[in-house]
Amino acid sequence: MNFYEESLLLHKSHKGKLEIVSKVSVKTREELSIVYTPGIAKPCLLIARSPEEARKHTIKANTIAVVSDGSAVFGLGNIGGMASLPAMEGKAVLFKELGGVDAFPVCLSTQDTDGIVETVKNIISSFGGISLEGIEAFRLINVERRLKEELDIPVFHDGGHGVAVVVCAAVINAFRFLKKPLKHVRALVCGAGVGGSHTAKMLYAIGVRDIVICDSKGILSASRLSEFDEYKLELLEFTNKDRLEGGLDDAIEGRDLFIGLSKPRLLTSEMVRTMEKDPVVFALATPEPEIFPDLAKFGGARIAATCRPDFSNYIDTALAFPGVFRGALDAEAKEITEAMKLAAVHAIAEQVPDGELSEEYILPDVFKQGLASEVAKAVADAWVNDGMTRDQLSVKDSYIFV
Amino acid sequence: MNFYEESLLLHKSHKGKLEIVSKVSVKTREELSIVYTPGIAKPCLLIARSPEEARKHTIKANTIAVVSDGSAVFGLGNIGGMASLPAMEGKAVLFKELGGVDAFPVCLSTQDTDGIVETVKNIISSFGGISLEGIEAFRLINVERRLKEELDIPVFHDGGHGVAVVVCAAVINAFRFLKKPLKHVRALVCGAGVGGSHTAKMLYAIGVRDIVICDSKGILSASRLSEFDEYKLELLEFTNKDRLEGGLDDAIEGRDLFIGLSKPRLLTSEMVRTMEKDPVVFALATPEPEIFPDLAKFGGARIAATCRPDFSNYIDTALAFPGVFRGALDAEAKEITEAMKLAAVHAIAEQVPDGELSEEYILPDVFKQGLASEVAKAVADAWVNDGMTRDQLSVKDSYIFV
Repeated sequence: MNFYEESLLLHKSHKGKLEIVSKVSVKTREELSIVYTPGIAKPCLLIARSPEEARKHTIKANTIAVVSDGSAVFGLGNIGGMASLPAMEGKAVLFKELGGVDAFPVCLSTQDTDGIVETVKNIISSFGGISLEGIEAFRLINVERRLKEELDIPVFHDGGHGVAVVVCAAVINAFRFLKKPLKHVRALVCGAGVGGSHTAKMLYAIGVRDIVICDSKGILSASRLSEFDEYKLELLEFTNKDRLEGGLDDAIEGRDLFIGLSKPRLLTSEMVRTMEKDPVVFALATPEPEIFPDLAKFGGARIAATCRPDFSNYIDTALAFPGVFRGALDAEAKEITEAMKLAAVHAIAEQVPDGELSEEYILPDVFKQGLASEVAKAVADAWVNDGMTRDQLSVKDSYIFV
Repeated sequence: MNFYEESLLLHKSHKGKLEIVSKVSVKTREELSIVYTPGIAKPCLLIARSPEEARKHTIKANTIAVVSDGSAVFGLGNIGGMASLPAMEGKAVLFKELGGVDAFPVCLSTQDTDGIVETVKNIISSFGGISLEGIEAFRLINVERRLKEELDIPVFHDGGHGVAVVVCAAVINAFRFLKKPLKHVRALVCGAGVGGSHTAKMLYAIGVRDIVICDSKGILSASRLSEFDEYKLELLEFTNKDRLEGGLDDAIEGRDLFIGLSKPRLLTSEMVRTMEKDPVVFALATPEPEIFPDLAKFGGARIAATCRPDFSNYIDTALAFPGVFRGALDAEAKEITEAMKLAAVHAIAEQVPDGELSEEYILPDVFKQGLASEVAKAVADAWVNDGMTRDQLSVKDSYIFV
């Protein structure tokens, strides 16, 4: 019996991992009249007059949609919306169990950007947030951009924002352990997809100033401008300040930090050996890392991390998303700002005290008591102190036109 | 303090009446690997190969969508999708509490027939059934027809099917009490909208043979053919066999049964007085009936019923929908057939034993223990004995092309 067979048995015996239960009692005719008709006329009419009241009187207060078109579910490829349901139910289980967030899987029958955006907008009433999952990278970027523009609730995708938050928390703690200031760290991000680009930006936000990014063709540099779309152009604005050229071999030499969000087995221990002394190697490709931890260590790596639970320093986005949405919902945030993600990074990093920090323990356990609520508190504060202020300013500006 | 104010307080304090909880434990890394990645690869790939497995391995097994565009929510008019959320949450509470059915409110931002149909189809993966609610009559008919054609899961609307089922259960018991065979009953249905037309058809299905229908312009008769759409033409096929002409006054004379699904206060006690001896008057308009029970009795009515919980003989669709969907989901039905609804009618009627039957008690209490499961059993049996057989025949036919 292995995880796969046990999972199949569990799904067959439970027929779904989620249950929708009532928070209120309806055992008498009187209770029925309050929970349902005629009593509900009052909250219904309140919301009809003031739609923002939905977040105070309905499931919108604590419910998010886990939205997938099933085009890129883990390593499974394009399996379609319906087949992604067990994965999205699992995600919803984690949202509830770790963050107390009610999450409902919305597994789409369309894989068209317009279709996804329109469908999500059409069902948005019930939801206070959107978590995009398992959507192919290019479509994901467009869907996210449009939903952020058109909705006034948080939109997040774990493969980008979530990865960046947890990787950066791990980076902070790795160099805290090595006692090297982040501003002196020379970083290489291997992979310029959704995960790589968000991680590079977040690295800059936490104070790393020397960042080089490689895509499958080599170092992102000005000499390649003509091949770049707007997203890669944006990355060039704050990376490769030394104007490096070449491939991964050239890029990795002398680096303190390797972050792989690319393909399995790209990296050799020989390449690790060309890095700075005591290098940090995060090999986060799935299902197999760019380099396995033992090989990385053989090449001289001081700290290694992967996206696999069977090794120490597991980069698990479940450290971030439950707390991030918990905080966003608690603060009734209209979006998840950079400041909120940054607050999550530091809150996660701080969950490992100096005394416990080691080469093999740079991130807290995902089941650590109180983790999500600490993250939530930091995220909510960041909205109140930053996002909400800006939001209120923009509301005030619009008063002119009222 | 009244129902309205109490309802507002309840909604504010609970921030939504539904909660999405996990049915499985995720307290350890191992459990996580079964509930989520990597274990879920197995059920995901199974469903990718055989989509019908979704009903055996996911929430699709027991979850329905309560879909509304908020265009006709109870007596509240067109309040829009978001404002209908408290009502649809309430409906979902009843589905769960009475029938053990997980129901999620899908409150739409679109009120366009194509938009509704496309949106529902796009999110259908998570659902094993659709309950249409609070949608304006003409749109409802088109949405229902298209969803039935295009989906292979049950589609039901309470305002039509649900009303018809419960009214007919009440009709059976009223004439059981009065010891009058249904084939001798002369019925008048006042109202040719969604509720009226479904009720008229179901009356015919339970054995009432003399049915006259009135709309706002009078008796549906062949002389008015030119004004009728296809739905009213269909009603004419089995009603008004005596070719009556005229208005409500003409239609009601000598009738044993009046069923109003029309407008408040249309009926006077004088009109009731022209009915057959010991007439049965169901005045089901909301928020006020066509005639209040005391006035109906004053006009000679032997049995009166309304859609109001503050009178006896409350025609409550909650007697039907939880059990109907419970049965349809249990049997993995692909639709809700006429035979299944008819089975529900008889199951509900049978819940009142001869000894308890009276003028004031023709329907069971909605909270009666075991009610929904009796209805569910009858509905599931009807699918297995009728619908599934036909469905399997059609599947067999299609083998030719495989």
